[in-house]
Amino acid sequence: MKLCKYGTNRVLEPQGVLPQAAQKIDNNMEIYDNEILIDVISLNIDSASFTQLKGEAEGDETKIGAKIMEIVAERGKMQNPVTGSGGMLIGKIAKIGKDLAYRNLAVGDKIATLVSLSLTPLKIEKINAIQMNIDRVDVTAQAILFETGIYAKLPEDMTQELALAALDVAGAPAQTAKMVKPGDSVLVLGAGGKSGMLCCYEAMRRVGPTGNVVAMCRSDADRDKLLDNGLAHAVIQSDVTRPIELMDKALAANGGHEFDISINCVNVPNSEMASIMPVRDGGTVYFFSMAVSFTKAALGAEGIGKDVNMVIGNGYSRGHAEITLAQLRESAELRKIFEERYV
Amino acid sequence: MKLCKYGTNRVLEPQGVLPQAAQKIDNNMEIYDNEILIDVISLNIDSASFTQLKGEAEGDETKIGAKIMEIVAERGKMQNPVTGSGGMLIGKIAKIGKDLAYRNLAVGDKIATLVSLSLTPLKIEKINAIQMNIDRVDVTAQAILFETGIYAKLPEDMTQELALAALDVAGAPAQTAKMVKPGDSVLVLGAGGKSGMLCCYEAMRRVGPTGNVVAMCRSDADRDKLLDNGLAHAVIQSDVTRPIELMDKALAANGGHEFDISINCVNVPNSEMASIMPVRDGGTVYFFSMAVSFTKAALGAEGIGKDVNMVIGNGYSRGHAEITLAQLRESAELRKIFEERYV
Repeated sequence: MKLCKYGTNRVLEPQGVLPQAAQKIDNNMEIYDNEILIDVISLNIDSASFTQLKGEAEGDETKIGAKIMEIVAERGKMQNPVTGSGGMLIGKIAKIGKDLAYRNLAVGDKIATLVSLSLTPLKIEKINAIQMNIDRVDVTAQAILFETGIYAKLPEDMTQELALAALDVAGAPAQTAKMVKPGDSVLVLGAGGKSGMLCCYEAMRRVGPTGNVVAMCRSDADRDKLLDNGLAHAVIQSDVTRPIELMDKALAANGGHEFDISINCVNVPNSEMASIMPVRDGGTVYFFSMAVSFTKAALGAEGIGKDVNMVIGNGYSRGHAEITLAQLRESAELRKIFEERYV
Repeated sequence: MKLCKYGTNRVLEPQGVLPQAAQKIDNNMEIYDNEILIDVISLNIDSASFTQLKGEAEGDETKIGAKIMEIVAERGKMQNPVTGSGGMLIGKIAKIGKDLAYRNLAVGDKIATLVSLSLTPLKIEKINAIQMNIDRVDVTAQAILFETGIYAKLPEDMTQELALAALDVAGAPAQTAKMVKPGDSVLVLGAGGKSGMLCCYEAMRRVGPTGNVVAMCRSDADRDKLLDNGLAHAVIQSDVTRPIELMDKALAANGGHEFDISINCVNVPNSEMASIMPVRDGGTVYFFSMAVSFTKAALGAEGIGKDVNMVIGNGYSRGHAEITLAQLRESAELRKIFEERYV
């Protein structure tokens, strides 16, 4: 059998697509020669998906657990059928296919997968705990990593929970690092969450003394956290579904000027216009939220005649794991917040 | 009264949203100082909306007319309550608000609006004809364009139908013009359609003698059309829902190398991976198709560890109408194809 580095061998239906687009994939835990078998410790469900699951189950843990078991049994992977999104996992290397023996990896190594659960073959034996406040599900399970599946060995100088919490959203700060230039004005929407805080931190480093980072959040607690820890020059409290009010507040915090860049880290729908309207013509709108609608963004910008570059946040960016872990090493404040809230 | 460039002054309910999201907008035809009044000649109802109206009225023209009158009376705009979509209109400038007097526009100019009817204040006096085969409704009516509402003056040197056919997809070639550089290799998916052909033409001009434009289409007729009219260096025939097969063919047509840019003009779902896989790390994937899924793109690139820039095709780009109409003036071949197929 010819092996595919993208894992298409395991696609059951429909044929010819990649594992992520598949309705159902093969979660038989006999590995091919170019695969890696993992004993899974926990699943970090992505925020959009977990919010949806919680809503559907009306906050009932047992129902959430049952729904996760049902999804994985049906699809062979933990891909939320409503949001289409997944998350990531941590576990220990159980077996390495012989074609990948050259890698700097050994059985027993603890890793975090950096590819989405929405394409990762998974078989859950049992759910051990659901940690509602950090979107984490502890399991007895096995999973498979394809040849192209990216992962990070968990570092020695921090707990696995801390590393995982940050790696989960590693694409966002890494892309912020590559995009933000000295002197830029940057608006971060949904700044109180994990990816929002990491983006704020990275933007603050990049804009330098002539730039301006405005963070948008909902609660007083998030506002205080952002300001007290120097994660933004200014904070506005607003609601992404009220784009005009949000824009007015954001512009007021930027000397009345439109922004060079907005970064959307919001975990609710209908945030597109709030991201687009405060940005200048020729500026960049970077959508990291998985709750963003492609057509609402494309038609929304057209509807108000805004010539902005709208970028789909790629979950992967070269070096994203290193960039994100370095943030936690550099910033005692960020590390403390992460340890208090997400571990 | 403080005037809003986005027209929110006219939102009646619910308060706080933009005109497109509003249930009802004010269609009083007294204009504000930053608005333009139009004597409407015809409405080009969008295809999804017109199909729905025809179905509901069981093809009865009188009933379609009555339904349109009812919708506009209720909402102050022609936004189909089932599909949510609108269309565009053609008319003559009746009055220009004094804040917009600086514009290169005069009373009597014939224009097409390039913003959706779903956000355009409209008052219909009477319906004169319904042209069932081209989704067009000729009316005696007035409409209002907001300060941010984009439009194009209809040119003298081509029929209104030809201009509209091209303006309908003007965002794509304009963004191609801005993105493609000399020496680039460019893959256009869905190259046989309107926007695909315009993107191919623009890419061919931009890449110059050291670049390579590969067009992907389905049919033999499209292949011949693209090659016979010099719209690409090479054509591949493939299926976007089979991304691995498509990638193999595309790379073979590019000397075995990955592409700098891919442009997605496909009108079917599940084309994301076919756009992402053939592009090099650091390259750009430009999604113009409205059938693209945000999450499939974001998670798909991550899933295969591809560090590409993924751009949401903005329906608007500065100068997009001029750029697109100029293509039809420059290329006799393109104009002939458009006149034969889309007028």
